[in-house]
Amino acid sequence: MQNSHELAPFLDELAEAASTAIMPFFRAEPAIENKLTAGFDPVTEADKAGERAMRTLINARHPQHGILGEEYGSENLEAEHVWVLDPIDGTRAFITGLPTWGTLIGLRSNGIPSLGMMVQPYVNERYAGDGNTAWYEGPIGRKQLASRACGSIADAVIFTTTPALFSPGEREVFDSIETEAKLVRYGTDCYGYSMVAAGLGDAVIESGLQPYDIVALVPIVEGAGGIVSNWTGGSPADGGQILASGDARLHDALLARLNTVAV
Amino acid sequence: MQNSHELAPFLDELAEAASTAIMPFFRAEPAIENKLTAGFDPVTEADKAGERAMRTLINARHPQHGILGEEYGSENLEAEHVWVLDPIDGTRAFITGLPTWGTLIGLRSNGIPSLGMMVQPYVNERYAGDGNTAWYEGPIGRKQLASRACGSIADAVIFTTTPALFSPGEREVFDSIETEAKLVRYGTDCYGYSMVAAGLGDAVIESGLQPYDIVALVPIVEGAGGIVSNWTGGSPADGGQILASGDARLHDALLARLNTVAV
Repeated sequence: MQNSHELAPFLDELAEAASTAIMPFFRAEPAIENKLTAGFDPVTEADKAGERAMRTLINARHPQHGILGEEYGSENLEAEHVWVLDPIDGTRAFITGLPTWGTLIGLRSNGIPSLGMMVQPYVNERYAGDGNTAWYEGPIGRKQLASRACGSIADAVIFTTTPALFSPGEREVFDSIETEAKLVRYGTDCYGYSMVAAGLGDAVIESGLQPYDIVALVPIVEGAGGIVSNWTGGSPADGGQILASGDARLHDALLARLNTVAV
Repeated sequence: MQNSHELAPFLDELAEAASTAIMPFFRAEPAIENKLTAGFDPVTEADKAGERAMRTLINARHPQHGILGEEYGSENLEAEHVWVLDPIDGTRAFITGLPTWGTLIGLRSNGIPSLGMMVQPYVNERYAGDGNTAWYEGPIGRKQLASRACGSIADAVIFTTTPALFSPGEREVFDSIETEAKLVRYGTDCYGYSMVAAGLGDAVIESGLQPYDIVALVPIVEGAGGIVSNWTGGSPADGGQILASGDARLHDALLARLNTVAV
């Protein structure tokens, strides 16, 4: 049996492999393929190349591990350790040239998010965590991440990717929170969670997430002292309706509002 | 009489001075002072330090030039060359740790935007232009900027900082454009204009801008082959209602909609 801590250095190797595969496509106008005809959910060649690079490395080095990826599905999900991969979280930012997307590399050990990294290769920064500690490495050095105190919704800076993702009932509750909050910022994708871990924001509220959108981010936010759960307060590992907060008091205040529309 | 082209290297010096002054405050939880009690328009110490650094350099090297800055007002506006400065465009991004803010350094020569630079010191990238050419320098090297072709609103990727800045009448027209557009991205500030110049987006629609929000960006977008005007098609140099497009056909299509609510 392997300890997830022993796998921490492997996160950096996966990050390197994904970045090398993805970067040639950033700001290079890659061919875009729509996943859904109704919406606008672009998948770039970069997305696929990044996931292939990580899967190749995992299969070569840890063939007994499972993989759950956005682009190429699942393999060996009954394994003790399952890698949960989203090569480009924030595809809309990616295709419009903005640097607020990231590669998400998560590890689920016996069903629980145990290790995670968010990598931004253009900015050259990484946020990583193991649920107990979390760290940043980038243009301003290397430092430990710590979420900040925030006692109420009125004092909170809240992130969400877009209110358009909410159902009408969810939207009504979100709008009432937005009216009360100090500041709400849209379009953040994985950056919202990383900024909560870094103590630069207070919460992320999202719905309709897949496991690969959230598993990597849980050990980062929790390692920085924050909390991640679904809207009933249960495990966030399966995605769906997600709340991440830097302070338990704020988490409770937001859960009280969000659980009225929890599914 | 000075040619504005001779001043191009001075843009890099101003960029260095501003970046050095601003960077210690980024992600460092600086003291925040609210400009407006009603809204949330934070001004950081970084904003003031950045503008002081640029003003000191301009006064020392080009004492005959004028200055119009966000933080410290105007001096010598009747000069042939007037520097138009916004040390941190995108203060909400700045205070939440996101890298989508920029330092805007513009030059207005005889009333016309003649040189401009957008600097992102954390990412270490710069976008600059003189109205005839525009260039990028950053993590993926140095290259000339060129806007892309886009013939219709239905094909357009459109940026805006937030729809909340529009009046009810403006909002109605913007909402109809958003429904028709391929993709609309919020929270972009100066990055929207830079991405139009880079051919990664098609238009920016904003209202209520100050001269220091737009003067620096005009020579970049126009140098890349795009167009910037107010909503009646007139000069954008005074701010207000602004439309920037990468393709003249799209600019005309958007102006036809926006000029119904032009003031």
